[in-house]
Amino acid sequence: MQSINIGLLGVGTIGSGVIDLVIKNGGLIAKRTGVLPVIRGVCDTNASVLKNITGIENLIKTTNAEEIIGDKEIDIIVELIGGVHPAKEVILTALAKRKHVVTANKALLSEHWKEIFEAASDAGLFVGFEASVGGGIPVIRVIRESFVSNNLEIIYGILNGTTNFVLTMMAKHDHSFDKALSIAQKKGFAEKDPRMDISGKDSAHKLAILSLLGFGVGVSPDDIYTEGIEDITPQDIRYAKEWGYSVKLLAIAKNTRKGLQLRVHPTLIPSYHLLAGVSGEDNAVYVKGDFVGESLFYGKGAGASPTASSVMSDIVEIAKHIVCCGKEHSVPGQVPHDFGTLDIINVEELVLSYYLRFSVIDKPGVLSGISSVLSENDISIASMSQEERKVGQTVPVIMLTHKAREGNMRNAIATIDKMDFVMDKTMVIRVET
Amino acid sequence: MQSINIGLLGVGTIGSGVIDLVIKNGGLIAKRTGVLPVIRGVCDTNASVLKNITGIENLIKTTNAEEIIGDKEIDIIVELIGGVHPAKEVILTALAKRKHVVTANKALLSEHWKEIFEAASDAGLFVGFEASVGGGIPVIRVIRESFVSNNLEIIYGILNGTTNFVLTMMAKHDHSFDKALSIAQKKGFAEKDPRMDISGKDSAHKLAILSLLGFGVGVSPDDIYTEGIEDITPQDIRYAKEWGYSVKLLAIAKNTRKGLQLRVHPTLIPSYHLLAGVSGEDNAVYVKGDFVGESLFYGKGAGASPTASSVMSDIVEIAKHIVCCGKEHSVPGQVPHDFGTLDIINVEELVLSYYLRFSVIDKPGVLSGISSVLSENDISIASMSQEERKVGQTVPVIMLTHKAREGNMRNAIATIDKMDFVMDKTMVIRVET
Repeated sequence: MQSINIGLLGVGTIGSGVIDLVIKNGGLIAKRTGVLPVIRGVCDTNASVLKNITGIENLIKTTNAEEIIGDKEIDIIVELIGGVHPAKEVILTALAKRKHVVTANKALLSEHWKEIFEAASDAGLFVGFEASVGGGIPVIRVIRESFVSNNLEIIYGILNGTTNFVLTMMAKHDHSFDKALSIAQKKGFAEKDPRMDISGKDSAHKLAILSLLGFGVGVSPDDIYTEGIEDITPQDIRYAKEWGYSVKLLAIAKNTRKGLQLRVHPTLIPSYHLLAGVSGEDNAVYVKGDFVGESLFYGKGAGASPTASSVMSDIVEIAKHIVCCGKEHSVPGQVPHDFGTLDIINVEELVLSYYLRFSVIDKPGVLSGISSVLSENDISIASMSQEERKVGQTVPVIMLTHKAREGNMRNAIATIDKMDFVMDKTMVIRVET
Repeated sequence: MQSINIGLLGVGTIGSGVIDLVIKNGGLIAKRTGVLPVIRGVCDTNASVLKNITGIENLIKTTNAEEIIGDKEIDIIVELIGGVHPAKEVILTALAKRKHVVTANKALLSEHWKEIFEAASDAGLFVGFEASVGGGIPVIRVIRESFVSNNLEIIYGILNGTTNFVLTMMAKHDHSFDKALSIAQKKGFAEKDPRMDISGKDSAHKLAILSLLGFGVGVSPDDIYTEGIEDITPQDIRYAKEWGYSVKLLAIAKNTRKGLQLRVHPTLIPSYHLLAGVSGEDNAVYVKGDFVGESLFYGKGAGASPTASSVMSDIVEIAKHIVCCGKEHSVPGQVPHDFGTLDIINVEELVLSYYLRFSVIDKPGVLSGISSVLSENDISIASMSQEERKVGQTVPVIMLTHKAREGNMRNAIATIDKMDFVMDKTMVIRVET
């Protein structure tokens, strides 16, 4: 039986999951693949975390990453430090010392993929990143290997467990956003500072990585139009439901004739769509390719065990290569061999349907005022609903529009929001059908 | 740019799909991977099929498979002949001539996997079979590579598009089985002789292949308890729906403390489950692993293009290996390195909930007669529903039971079906929750 030595940097939630997985299922992996994974060294800045690791023989425990990266017995460095620095430097150093790397670091990869993959490719080394998107869902491997012969047309992702949990709580129990968020925090599905998740930024990081693989487009997360879920109300979710829609934070990449659409925002999707059934902290990715057609991959998008499962799939891939071809042998590249060029469509040029919730004083002329502004901007109304009249009070007027240009919609809403009967910012949610 | 030469045996639906894919997206594959796939030779017993293939330069067209298998320029043989003979001999000959093999042949692999994988392993060659299960759904690669570190607990598969289409037609339009089947045949979703699909046999073939990978158990499809959908009525689907269930033909593998359950049969599953949303000819596989948790993979389970996409994913994997390591280099094995032993549980020992539809003459004493037999067999009723009384006529009595032993259920039904007020064979459908 051959074994492969792993050095683990960062023993937080996922790191502990990886240790647990190797201890419990290392023998299973060996039975299946003929290679036994061995954790030879662990590093964390917190010495007491290291102290608590038990169950592994001859384990090097250190607070100094270089001791692990420099260990000649170690074949694979698993970077689970998170954040951009020092994770980036650690990975580049590991590659320079001819170690393969596995990482779950979406923030780092989405921003510095070029430098990292070029360094890996030059050295003929592997940088595994299955765990960086979708937790336990093997979306990286599926897009890179299984769908390698497909022109991808659409990627829709529910890529953030926190926001999906919050929206599910709001939908199921009619909770406000704040209430739902505080439940998520209590249950450990949202961080103390949840801005990265709630704002859609985390989803944008992941979408950037998927776009790199799926469309061969190197984009920064900053190039992705991103809106969070903080303004969604339970009322919006209820109205959407009445019209046959669910509200999800979707990460969207679409390859159209005019160019590539890349965007993250709350979205109305038909309730019958499989993505609408993805509830709680779960994640899912819908992919449409020109040959494979419509596909969906669903699973646990976060958490120690599912993410460890993905980390381990990369470790095993490297281990198999080493056993098969030897330590000094180069691996095939992990990102597209040759990048094409694809224009990213400006969000103002998108043509979409919209859900609109106006907060208006109910008085004569309101509807005609709104609809004439919409009409001036080439926006036509598909359906409309207004709650019972309460003269003089603020009531919501809900509309679904036919397809309209985003730029026109922005103009129209800017005009409408200045009208004297409009009491609050109009809620605009994009619709995908 | 390196190229890899493919020899295609069998130009039916899938074969044509592969040719189409290479012509349309060969350049894309080259851009992504650095390797250009080239179809160098095609073989079919039907010469007029060969004549109609256009768009490939310097293509060898032959009705003699040996001409393709023996071609020294060809690296990969794609077997799309189907059936056991001569596909088996063709694959073994190709391996003997040191060609890698890609096949979509589930009937062959489920019955002769041992001989084929041993021959491949001895020769250090690749036998790719992603296309043998789930069409375009990359379930083979996911179980083998992505979930390699997981003890699998459950596999639920909707693995046959024909039966899922028929059940969907019955559910949506209240069609009889025969009517739904004839629609499926007209639409090309069922073959003229649909027995292989309708009987559950095709699903059993695929479940055998998944069990091999997922549980390391070498089973013959004959070891899998298999029931088809031919006795399901629209009435059953309607009653199930009223109680919150959908009826699906599920392929089930469960690793329990008592051993492995392997079975294919119509199944009531909760309507809220993602699998219940898989409609028409689509397929899906639900996998639960000890680390990754619950996952679901959904997509097109058949058809030329999706299946060609899976065939091509194997071709590219082989091509990358050849380019990376050279033609003479061995590949890692494709099935578990070391098989464990797992007992397969006898179906009579299963403990399940059941849907029962009794066809009875409505007269006093019927319910007490049925329930006393159930009770004698340790079967307790969870819910019951009876249509409006029509004294003297045959009416259905519907029950859901609590968990009971299958053997007891069979005894009870055998006794009940002999009672004088029972006018037809009782319908028994297993429930999974």
